[in-house]
Amino acid sequence: MANGIPLDGGRHAGTPTVGIVGLGLIGGSLARRLVARGIGVVAWNHRPHPYAEAERDGIRCAATLGELVDAGPDLIVLCNPLKAMPGVLVGLRPLLASRPRITLTDVGSVKGMVRQQVEAAGLGDRYVGAHPMAGNEHSGWQAADPALYDGALWALTVTPGTDYARFLAVARFVTEGVGNRIIALDDTTHDQAAALISHMPHVVATALVNTLVADPDRNIAAALAAGSWRDMTRVALTDPERTRAMVEEDSRNVAALLRAMAARLTGVADALDAYDDRALTAFFALGQPFREYKARERAAALAGAERQPEERTLAIPAEGWQETLLASARHGERLVCLAGDHTAVVTAAGMD
Amino acid sequence: MANGIPLDGGRHAGTPTVGIVGLGLIGGSLARRLVARGIGVVAWNHRPHPYAEAERDGIRCAATLGELVDAGPDLIVLCNPLKAMPGVLVGLRPLLASRPRITLTDVGSVKGMVRQQVEAAGLGDRYVGAHPMAGNEHSGWQAADPALYDGALWALTVTPGTDYARFLAVARFVTEGVGNRIIALDDTTHDQAAALISHMPHVVATALVNTLVADPDRNIAAALAAGSWRDMTRVALTDPERTRAMVEEDSRNVAALLRAMAARLTGVADALDAYDDRALTAFFALGQPFREYKARERAAALAGAERQPEERTLAIPAEGWQETLLASARHGERLVCLAGDHTAVVTAAGMD
Repeated sequence: MANGIPLDGGRHAGTPTVGIVGLGLIGGSLARRLVARGIGVVAWNHRPHPYAEAERDGIRCAATLGELVDAGPDLIVLCNPLKAMPGVLVGLRPLLASRPRITLTDVGSVKGMVRQQVEAAGLGDRYVGAHPMAGNEHSGWQAADPALYDGALWALTVTPGTDYARFLAVARFVTEGVGNRIIALDDTTHDQAAALISHMPHVVATALVNTLVADPDRNIAAALAAGSWRDMTRVALTDPERTRAMVEEDSRNVAALLRAMAARLTGVADALDAYDDRALTAFFALGQPFREYKARERAAALAGAERQPEERTLAIPAEGWQETLLASARHGERLVCLAGDHTAVVTAAGMD
Repeated sequence: MANGIPLDGGRHAGTPTVGIVGLGLIGGSLARRLVARGIGVVAWNHRPHPYAEAERDGIRCAATLGELVDAGPDLIVLCNPLKAMPGVLVGLRPLLASRPRITLTDVGSVKGMVRQQVEAAGLGDRYVGAHPMAGNEHSGWQAADPALYDGALWALTVTPGTDYARFLAVARFVTEGVGNRIIALDDTTHDQAAALISHMPHVVATALVNTLVADPDRNIAAALAAGSWRDMTRVALTDPERTRAMVEEDSRNVAALLRAMAARLTGVADALDAYDDRALTAFFALGQPFREYKARERAAALAGAERQPEERTLAIPAEGWQETLLASARHGERLVCLAGDHTAVVTAAGMD
């Protein structure tokens, strides 16, 4: 496991093997989870306000990025806000020049833009993109919670040029270190899918709230609001600046999906006004595969340990490993763990 | 309390004072809650399959609508599906002719259409509309749960011609019988607000699911889906036929709101494509009053009993009582209870 994260290997348990840049909700939760799982963590935050608490939790805190690098982690996870990314990368570049062993990853919700920035900083050859599907409507160290990652899936993103050893290092960090599962994608596939299930819906939730606020009878509408409204607008209660940043970082995909949504909603309005039975029937039937997928998920969750999803072994070739992993993800599989450097255990969990 | 529901008055505890037509999720939950609160209930369902269980719960079950009316309730609550409403009303009309004392209400999610049907059946003079803001993604007697009404707000709808004694009967049924709060509206105001916070968002959730299902990388998108997607599409997992019926019953309001949503989403897409900073700033700022309203609600919930919302006494005039109650609702107040026939206790809970 030369490139992996030793769980109980030759190092002292407290020796940092993972460096975390940014102790907000995502980075703070990750740091606390890793420490709780016995993995040494060194962290740097742009302001030292969480350091006293973080140190009490067993997280070694660095006064500077240089001190973080000097602590000698195998992997640095960039958990800073995306707007801070160019500055952090400029700071890291000279520090990492003499340390080729350190692999770089991040947790940003868009992957194409981050890779461009990493490559612009000359760090592309040691980078693997990552996006843990974890979060809530809070933010900051105060909200950090190791359980945020319970059952979270990570998307790792790679290119035809990605070093397989770097991919293995990040994959083992996620499966063994964090205890989560993986799908491996290219940046474009990730960013389009993330726009569909997260960035675009955030705009939709915000537009719903705006519709209510702009209504002259908004007090009455707010009074009538029950579970469906609460759930559909929850993400619009998050910091709107954070939502705006997330949307702008994936703006082309989000804009295209918003236009598609607008067309769907206009289509329903037309069908309602014309009482177009066929169009309404088609609209309400189209989502059936997703309803059945969620019903199977619920049934499996109720069955619990008695009904483990089917697992299979996936051979990962030395050449074309990116395509093999992408095809597995497209079939709805998730990577559970690496049984060897070229053998993964994957589980079927998709819609099809 | 001549027109009210006696809680511990002259009747035997088991004597039905409330008749429930339809023992699905909403009617079944209501019937079980009333019985649990010591109120006699007689119920009729179009199929007798829940009767054995309902009788065990203390609900008297009627073989026919006639038997339900003969049990002598003060109030009949129509909890049948809206598509069954015309048939139920035709059946009730001759049965109610000799019983002018019985007040009629319902729990339908649209109020204008139901009133038209009630008036067409010649029962308009004894009718008060009602819509409890309660429900979940399940349906049917098996899902019935008295707790479904915990903290639920009811919208009662009235017209200039509504008999005040009938309104009082239904208002006391809700506040004393069910233990919930009220706002009193006209049908149009209700149906527009309900379309905004429930019917239109159901279509939006369905359109989100359709977008995912239609995507060639739907397995990957489904894998990445986390909390925001789950919450925003939960209502799209309900029976799509029920959603379609709800939407069609309020189709004019829903269509107008869908077009407005489509325009908002297109506006954001335009702003993203043009990087229109001012438009994006305005879009993400507009919902701020709703965010602050929810933050106040959360703070009040956390403060618990120590911080009761402000209550005041509302005098309800004999003439123009409809406007007095509507103005109170527009100010964000909710009716907690009736202190007398023309005095209500209301609590401030709105956005403004």
